[in-house]
Amino acid sequence: MAFPEVSTDVVSQFEAIVGKENVILDQEKRLDYAHDKTENYTFLPALVLKPGTTQEVSRIMQFCNAHRIPVTARGAGTGLAGSALPTHHGLVLSMERFNKILNIDELNLQATVEPGVITEVFQNAVKEKGLFYPPDPASKGSCFLGGNLAQNSGGPKAVKYGVTRDYVLNLEVVLPTGEIIWTGANVLKNSTGYNLTQLMCGSEGTLGIITKIVFKLRGYPQKNVLMLIPFVTNEEACRAIAAIFTAGIQPSGVEFFERVAALQTLAYCQKVLNSPVTTTFPDNMDAYLLCELDGNDEEVLMRDAERVMKVVEKFNSGEILFAESAAQKEELWKVRKNISPAVNWFTLTKSEDVVVPRANLPKLISGIKEIGKQYGFNTVCFGHLGDGNLHVNVLKEKISDTDWETKIPQGIGEIFKLTVSLGGTLSGEHGIGIAKRPYMPIALGKTNLELMRGIKKVFDPNDILNPGKIF
Amino acid sequence: MAFPEVSTDVVSQFEAIVGKENVILDQEKRLDYAHDKTENYTFLPALVLKPGTTQEVSRIMQFCNAHRIPVTARGAGTGLAGSALPTHHGLVLSMERFNKILNIDELNLQATVEPGVITEVFQNAVKEKGLFYPPDPASKGSCFLGGNLAQNSGGPKAVKYGVTRDYVLNLEVVLPTGEIIWTGANVLKNSTGYNLTQLMCGSEGTLGIITKIVFKLRGYPQKNVLMLIPFVTNEEACRAIAAIFTAGIQPSGVEFFERVAALQTLAYCQKVLNSPVTTTFPDNMDAYLLCELDGNDEEVLMRDAERVMKVVEKFNSGEILFAESAAQKEELWKVRKNISPAVNWFTLTKSEDVVVPRANLPKLISGIKEIGKQYGFNTVCFGHLGDGNLHVNVLKEKISDTDWETKIPQGIGEIFKLTVSLGGTLSGEHGIGIAKRPYMPIALGKTNLELMRGIKKVFDPNDILNPGKIF
Repeated sequence: MAFPEVSTDVVSQFEAIVGKENVILDQEKRLDYAHDKTENYTFLPALVLKPGTTQEVSRIMQFCNAHRIPVTARGAGTGLAGSALPTHHGLVLSMERFNKILNIDELNLQATVEPGVITEVFQNAVKEKGLFYPPDPASKGSCFLGGNLAQNSGGPKAVKYGVTRDYVLNLEVVLPTGEIIWTGANVLKNSTGYNLTQLMCGSEGTLGIITKIVFKLRGYPQKNVLMLIPFVTNEEACRAIAAIFTAGIQPSGVEFFERVAALQTLAYCQKVLNSPVTTTFPDNMDAYLLCELDGNDEEVLMRDAERVMKVVEKFNSGEILFAESAAQKEELWKVRKNISPAVNWFTLTKSEDVVVPRANLPKLISGIKEIGKQYGFNTVCFGHLGDGNLHVNVLKEKISDTDWETKIPQGIGEIFKLTVSLGGTLSGEHGIGIAKRPYMPIALGKTNLELMRGIKKVFDPNDILNPGKIF
Repeated sequence: MAFPEVSTDVVSQFEAIVGKENVILDQEKRLDYAHDKTENYTFLPALVLKPGTTQEVSRIMQFCNAHRIPVTARGAGTGLAGSALPTHHGLVLSMERFNKILNIDELNLQATVEPGVITEVFQNAVKEKGLFYPPDPASKGSCFLGGNLAQNSGGPKAVKYGVTRDYVLNLEVVLPTGEIIWTGANVLKNSTGYNLTQLMCGSEGTLGIITKIVFKLRGYPQKNVLMLIPFVTNEEACRAIAAIFTAGIQPSGVEFFERVAALQTLAYCQKVLNSPVTTTFPDNMDAYLLCELDGNDEEVLMRDAERVMKVVEKFNSGEILFAESAAQKEELWKVRKNISPAVNWFTLTKSEDVVVPRANLPKLISGIKEIGKQYGFNTVCFGHLGDGNLHVNVLKEKISDTDWETKIPQGIGEIFKLTVSLGGTLSGEHGIGIAKRPYMPIALGKTNLELMRGIKKVFDPNDILNPGKIF
């Protein structure tokens, strides 16, 4: 499917819907909507529209459905799978003007928001009322809640509090036909027909355009403890993670990173962010765990921290650093959250997001390093290992462009095969988009993919909504 | 769609698949599979099969799909919406032989089970290993895990720990075509295509037959406190519930029941169960809350209990009873869990399962009583009000059979309209089945229902699987 000529007639139709100032035709400005954070992928949209209301989205979809124009919804462009890229050279629907927090219902611990609200802006708004919205992707300072929903994003706190899909109660969605529905109700429990809300969540903009979101909220935990735990090897760090959970401890974050990730990020913070890190990361260590405990009772937290110490002592670990101040906590989180940009500052990467049952992590990491040796690539591994969710950045470095496009993807295929053989799957929180799409048959059988395609057809019979993604 | 003559040829085909001893033809024995716990509904199946393996289920489905034979999967028959009744006089697939706990993976805090395992049997098996499977429907002593999944069951602990769908990671499913799939992977986070696992959960046996379930588990909380809090009016009890949550307290159970529910249950325990209740329920009170707090730290629990006391003091409440022993806790839970059988022992009922945002409960309950007056019926209200999930038993008593089938359903329709106007929906945890099916258009628009029918067709093009349910 290709976009028809952007005739002046078509443009004026869209101008009539969203206003002239919200139609972007200029090529340079369209380039801002041609890429996300996935490798160096670039797909220029034929046109960008910035609707401001559900009704406008509905009218756009009706027009596009009638004229078979491909539509790709876009949040903040922070995606790591290429899910919001207009691969079919169609229309990008930028949701940036849907940026209002409509209601924070303190009595019911719920909030209604538009999808273009920045995740951190929302977190801070509810925190002011003593409330907590836990999902916190590393890009939370810029990513949109709608994008978090489309990809079912997670983040460090998912290990205790769950991912985006665990907080969504109800969605207003514009279907490809222009029809507007609410997927469920604003309630904590719902057994009223098929779960369309959960079906939308993680569907990467292929089933409908989310225009309103109802989230549930929690009380904000008042206190936390943050520990940096060094390990002599990656495998020992992974083994310790499984042991922390089997000891019955429930941390609010268990982040892992290799030494090389730490070193690159320290350099990046100093040279690019101009914000040097003062905490010393112990030498002679291959891996670090950042372990956070949270709650409302200081004594309970300290007792749990001691239990974590007793567990990790049994593994080949170094001296534990307890963050001493809010500033030091913030600094340690700054290191963790800048790993991905730092590694990408050093070299182009292909960024994977595999997930396995927690106790299989040691086999996964050693297997990945082995595959890297076979195929001639280095990797930087980090991520949410409390969930079994490992980010694997495959580094381009001096690999030739040809090998990068042909041989390296074969090696990545081997990583996925290993992941699936360990009971895991392709993506824990980034989604499939176009980057992981070729690998889907490794994780899912033909029947599963046919069911997904069938569902897609029910929602979008003309395949105009974000075509070419996932499967 | 009607089942063809049960010819000896058809019977011998099924006997070849499951063995002669697992084909039930005898009419009296088939009657055991003709009803569940929904009113006095009875639908005699033409045939009952008791398969023992996934392969057998697959072969049955292939045969039935080829011959357009309606198939209804059945768990323990404890449903309250008629979802497992063979309304189309077809074949009942009893999952009672799928009763094995296949694996409890202590390292990954996961378990793999067959769908015919009794919920409480599973809970006890994981508890022996210090692990916790929280969903606990009142019928947990007899209901099956597969049925819990089909209906997305909840129970008292859902308010803190979530419902069945929050614990399922992956499902083995036999599709109506006989194809066997796994819906996901055994991982805690998954953004790999559409969420088929969540789509199955709550689909009431209309999309596929669940043959294996992978659940996640938690550490078992070591301690708990149980309080019985009397209130002068229902509305005051409901207002207190919202206040407990806005105070930042997270109880592990907030159960509500009217005085009439308590009185009927006390009588039922004495006369039917032969197990009289010794705890005294204070007089001159219209409603009771059973509030449970759990955790691993006694001091924290006592502090939270004091906070609950301070909150409820502000409402028109009576003296709080703290359960003094494990035996007294068990007795109080016995009362709560026997409300439904007790009320049904007094009179035939229509049992509703509405859910609203928590703060709208006072309006909901007073509205229900008002509607009852208008339409001439009494109700007993109880349920999981921490979740906003109210069970409403409409009592037949002396209402004529004609009114029971014509006028009373109109009144129930009014209850649903009120519920939806308060931001709620038809069912929190019982499902829709046939009992609530006529009311679906009150909660869901035409487009939602069309999407659901479309999804059904993708999975089950010949509409052989549990036809006539939900929509």
